Amino acid sequence: MGIHGGDVYRNYVDIDFSTNVNPLGMPDAVRAALYKAIQTCGRYPDIQSEKLRKAVSKLLAVPEDDLLFGNGASELFMAIVHGIKVKKAVIPVPSFYGYEYAAKAVESKIIYYEMNKKNGFCLTDDCYRVLTDDVDVLFIANPNNPIGNLLSREAVKSLLRYCRDKGIYVVLDECFIEFCGNHFSMLSETEEFDNLILVRAFTKIFSIPGVRLGYLLCKNQSLRTKIASQLPEWNLSCFAQEAGCICAEQTEYVIKTVEYTRKERNFLEDGLKRKGFQVFPSMANFIMIYSESPLYESLLEKGILIRDCRNFRGLGRGFYRIAVKSRKENELLLENM
Amino acid sequence: MGIHGGDVYRNYVDIDFSTNVNPLGMPDAVRAALYKAIQTCGRYPDIQSEKLRKAVSKLLAVPEDDLLFGNGASELFMAIVHGIKVKKAVIPVPSFYGYEYAAKAVESKIIYYEMNKKNGFCLTDDCYRVLTDDVDVLFIANPNNPIGNLLSREAVKSLLRYCRDKGIYVVLDECFIEFCGNHFSMLSETEEFDNLILVRAFTKIFSIPGVRLGYLLCKNQSLRTKIASQLPEWNLSCFAQEAGCICAEQTEYVIKTVEYTRKERNFLEDGLKRKGFQVFPSMANFIMIYSESPLYESLLEKGILIRDCRNFRGLGRGFYRIAVKSRKENELLLENM
Repeated sequence: MGIHGGDVYRNYVDIDFSTNVNPLGMPDAVRAALYKAIQTCGRYPDIQSEKLRKAVSKLLAVPEDDLLFGNGASELFMAIVHGIKVKKAVIPVPSFYGYEYAAKAVESKIIYYEMNKKNGFCLTDDCYRVLTDDVDVLFIANPNNPIGNLLSREAVKSLLRYCRDKGIYVVLDECFIEFCGNHFSMLSETEEFDNLILVRAFTKIFSIPGVRLGYLLCKNQSLRTKIASQLPEWNLSCFAQEAGCICAEQTEYVIKTVEYTRKERNFLEDGLKRKGFQVFPSMANFIMIYSESPLYESLLEKGILIRDCRNFRGLGRGFYRIAVKSRKENELLLENM
Repeated sequence: MGIHGGDVYRNYVDIDFSTNVNPLGMPDAVRAALYKAIQTCGRYPDIQSEKLRKAVSKLLAVPEDDLLFGNGASELFMAIVHGIKVKKAVIPVPSFYGYEYAAKAVESKIIYYEMNKKNGFCLTDDCYRVLTDDVDVLFIANPNNPIGNLLSREAVKSLLRYCRDKGIYVVLDECFIEFCGNHFSMLSETEEFDNLILVRAFTKIFSIPGVRLGYLLCKNQSLRTKIASQLPEWNLSCFAQEAGCICAEQTEYVIKTVEYTRKERNFLEDGLKRKGFQVFPSMANFIMIYSESPLYESLLEKGILIRDCRNFRGLGRGFYRIAVKSRKENELLLENM
């Protein structure tokens, strides 16, 4: 079992419930763009990502200059910690391991703020007490991974305000926000908060984790320049650029996805509850459950991979993350549990 | 005119002589691998690059553990400077801009050692005088870009020895070495020099700059661990991994390329000399010339892009880099000059 889900390379897997991508898969138009990209990869990709920048700027209705693109969100986290020269980071846990990985790369001191099971692993105002003046950056994911719970706009704004007063940058990871509906995003608040670094990706919502494409939005120009200087040249492949341009046009697909995900998440949630598992409320395309009896090995024997969350900091034995997939696959999972 | 060649995105270009890739183009088997990769990019790429690691380890006859892979060599340069925490770097110039870009990302002091036109921009022993104890890293390319000249094995070994005694790491960029013949590589010397970081790429020799795939070889385990910690997770796309595995099998193609490049380089060199340009000796798949009269704009008007080298540190007006391409294209260039 690796530090992340999705290890279909060292397991025999028929159905992968460990990776959280769009249950509808990749849009056909994006696949077509990838085929087209093969014709262009004999030349260097555009070092300025001009077409992609225009497309995403149009999609989000933000100025082109406010955007930075990365070879996946992972590369952006790395560039952010180097750009800020983080000395002390706060990471509420459980959450995505990538923040810790990045903070360790700059040998930052890391405060892990533990969210409680009894609060459903929700971030509460109690976390303000660790947000002291000497903190450089706070990493939060909304919705959070692996739980799928969502902070309200007001909660995020109040956190941003508090951090701004303390001189703390906030890396807000919205890599799964599209599954919840875009109105939960802080996209419209970037103007107000120059301490906000909003990170998003095309990976999950368009089911292209193998392509590698993330982006960040930040109104703070001097910070953006520092982060940009930490991104390798030509960091976006021609595949990422061609696919990204088409992804930015898939607004109908996103709407369809939100509806489909909601329906299937409810179906899966009901089924899991009927099986007797403790189900944590989720707004995303995955569900975390707690089970007294072990699940991982027995499902893997049947070719079904789920995410054992025992190596998530702040969790432990018994927690599992399950992706919301198609009805047929969701049924298969429930039958095999 | 950008800082690099190959800007076909903001110019109208029929033939691009500014990008130095294999004149034979991408091998068919590599193209097939890219098509295959489209089927796999709905899942995360292998975070351990297991198949690719095995393939490259077999190709180079080096232990798997000695290898690190990057999203292009550019990403590796960035990870190296952060891994070493470079405070002072030596960069002989003219050379590839990427070393300077990386060194600046860590706010390193940079000593630019200027190679002379009268020496044909060759690195001589005189450079030893700037290799003082306080230097952390020396960046050299062999063959060098944009000149295409090659340091002898003995010259490189003596430099490595000198740097080892001074506690200086040497980043040896062999991204074009395959065009010269692999026997010029320091591959067989990595065992002897634990201060050597050998960087190579599949970009140029297999004509896949749009895919992004580089690797480094280093026997120094603690250094390798430090560099690895600076590489983002999932930095290699499924395209890079699938293509790389097949690239590693193309030994016949490389042999054919060396022969073809040599023949066409000679043809182009003769033609350029007959046109009255000063031609600098090259062993690579590109040629640098000096011309009193300007060339860049007039060729671009005819849809031909060459690399104006005026923004290479240590060069200036009148220097141009020209890629060796197919006979037909090389003839077209000469006719239009």
